[in-house]
Amino acid sequence: MSEPHGLDVLVPRRDLEQRHGPWPDGVRVHVWDGLTSEDDLPQDVLDRIGLWVLPYAVPGAERLLKRLPSLRCAQSLSAGVEKLLPLIPDGVALHNGRGLHDDSTAEHALALILAAQRDLPQWVADQREGRWEPHFTRSLTDSRVAVVGYGSIGTALERRLLACGAEVVRVARRARPDEDVHAVTELPRLLPEVDIAVLILPETPSSIGQFGAEELAAMPDGALVVNVGRGRTLDTDALLAEVTAGRLRAALDVTDPEPLPGDHPLRSAPGVLITPHVAGGSACYWPRADRLIVEQVRRFAVGEPLLNPVLRD
Amino acid sequence: MSEPHGLDVLVPRRDLEQRHGPWPDGVRVHVWDGLTSEDDLPQDVLDRIGLWVLPYAVPGAERLLKRLPSLRCAQSLSAGVEKLLPLIPDGVALHNGRGLHDDSTAEHALALILAAQRDLPQWVADQREGRWEPHFTRSLTDSRVAVVGYGSIGTALERRLLACGAEVVRVARRARPDEDVHAVTELPRLLPEVDIAVLILPETPSSIGQFGAEELAAMPDGALVVNVGRGRTLDTDALLAEVTAGRLRAALDVTDPEPLPGDHPLRSAPGVLITPHVAGGSACYWPRADRLIVEQVRRFAVGEPLLNPVLRD
Repeated sequence: MSEPHGLDVLVPRRDLEQRHGPWPDGVRVHVWDGLTSEDDLPQDVLDRIGLWVLPYAVPGAERLLKRLPSLRCAQSLSAGVEKLLPLIPDGVALHNGRGLHDDSTAEHALALILAAQRDLPQWVADQREGRWEPHFTRSLTDSRVAVVGYGSIGTALERRLLACGAEVVRVARRARPDEDVHAVTELPRLLPEVDIAVLILPETPSSIGQFGAEELAAMPDGALVVNVGRGRTLDTDALLAEVTAGRLRAALDVTDPEPLPGDHPLRSAPGVLITPHVAGGSACYWPRADRLIVEQVRRFAVGEPLLNPVLRD
Repeated sequence: MSEPHGLDVLVPRRDLEQRHGPWPDGVRVHVWDGLTSEDDLPQDVLDRIGLWVLPYAVPGAERLLKRLPSLRCAQSLSAGVEKLLPLIPDGVALHNGRGLHDDSTAEHALALILAAQRDLPQWVADQREGRWEPHFTRSLTDSRVAVVGYGSIGTALERRLLACGAEVVRVARRARPDEDVHAVTELPRLLPEVDIAVLILPETPSSIGQFGAEELAAMPDGALVVNVGRGRTLDTDALLAEVTAGRLRAALDVTDPEPLPGDHPLRSAPGVLITPHVAGGSACYWPRADRLIVEQVRRFAVGEPLLNPVLRD
């Protein structure tokens, strides 16, 4: 390596300095968007990379980890890093994209809720098939919504729900009485009074199947289950039984299994709306991601602690 | 008539007193929901009706006007009464449902915006056809939205848009500089900087075709036009040209003509989402309508001026 503790960084986005001003002195910025072959990256550059910002949502990009001997910090642009974490070498710090998806994910959750409450899938079919048959629908206004997994995305969602005239019930893994946050163990008691439950749970050993048959059974007839967290936190078989019976409705951005097979019964179950894990991926994501990349590079250059460290158990 | 200036009122909703307490002394409340034949209403009751609250969204209900010789006040539960007004006999006051639809209509406008920005019609098709092909979408967050027809619905929509991280440009027939409201005549100057335009215009002689070829041409490529007001305020032919060219997108709850024929080209034009005039008709409408009915009956009983008078030109 030509320079010890080199200030070489590898980022996935071009033209950041045009939008955010010059990079800090001493930093050498290289770009790999994850779409071109990593063989195009000279090994002598890779040998010096100290901070790598991984391309967002590029499957397999993590293979480059094996070719970065000087790596000290890996920055993911995703909030959930459960699959990446085991691949990070000892001695390398991992930082996640916590917060970058908050607005996009909260907005998609709101889109799913409104689509389900206002029967948009029905209207889309009617538009295509030539019908004009108005009927009254449900609404979000005046509804009570449980936000299950009340963190930064939940906060962004709550702001939107309150503006829509809904009432919010905050739920997280542990109760936080000072913030009116209930524990997930209270769900069976809370859910009978809830019109809509939005799951924003990360996938952890304890959260898999967290929202299962008992929770679903506690929801009133016609209630809506929304999942924008991780597919495995919701028991698919239990949900399928409820929606097939016409008792509950669902709007899912994440599924188990994922991708959802083309012939999976959830796809054609009544009252089910599915989007292919796109909540975090919308236009409002990139300005936030770019600001984080620039800030992390600055911190790396001057030796400040980077934002969003991922703690290891 | 057995009682002069009788306090007989005819309302379309049952059980109001169970939810809102007893009717005022002296009032005799009769119910006609517009769905049963009006022949079931005894003519001696009809002869005494002084206040009639018309059934909501029941085509043809207005035929009963001819059988109400003592009518002094007609209360519509719609905000737009342009078709009803010419049918109201001289000497009868008309009151409209201004405000009742604000939350429901604002919510539906938001649902249309989010569905269009987040590609929900595409995901609905993909769900049905077995695809799982995520892509980045537009967002509402960070967008600039012109609210064209900034009144009570516009205010309710603005609250929601701001909570979604959008910027709002207020536009109304006349400028109101103190409230940052621009005049519709400024639209050609404003629209080039706008991502989304939401029309909430009533139908008046001057508003027909208000949003036409010039306004559409002023919008940037890929922009979204939403109409939750009245279909004729938006020039259908001009819109069809823009969406067919793939230059603009549209989400329409009202159309011209309406109902939209099954083979109308708007139905299959790219980037167009259509709902069948259902913005005002959702669950959050009835509690607001019921409160207005009860308040108007109270005012009628004690001789106070009723709310929401419709002024005649």
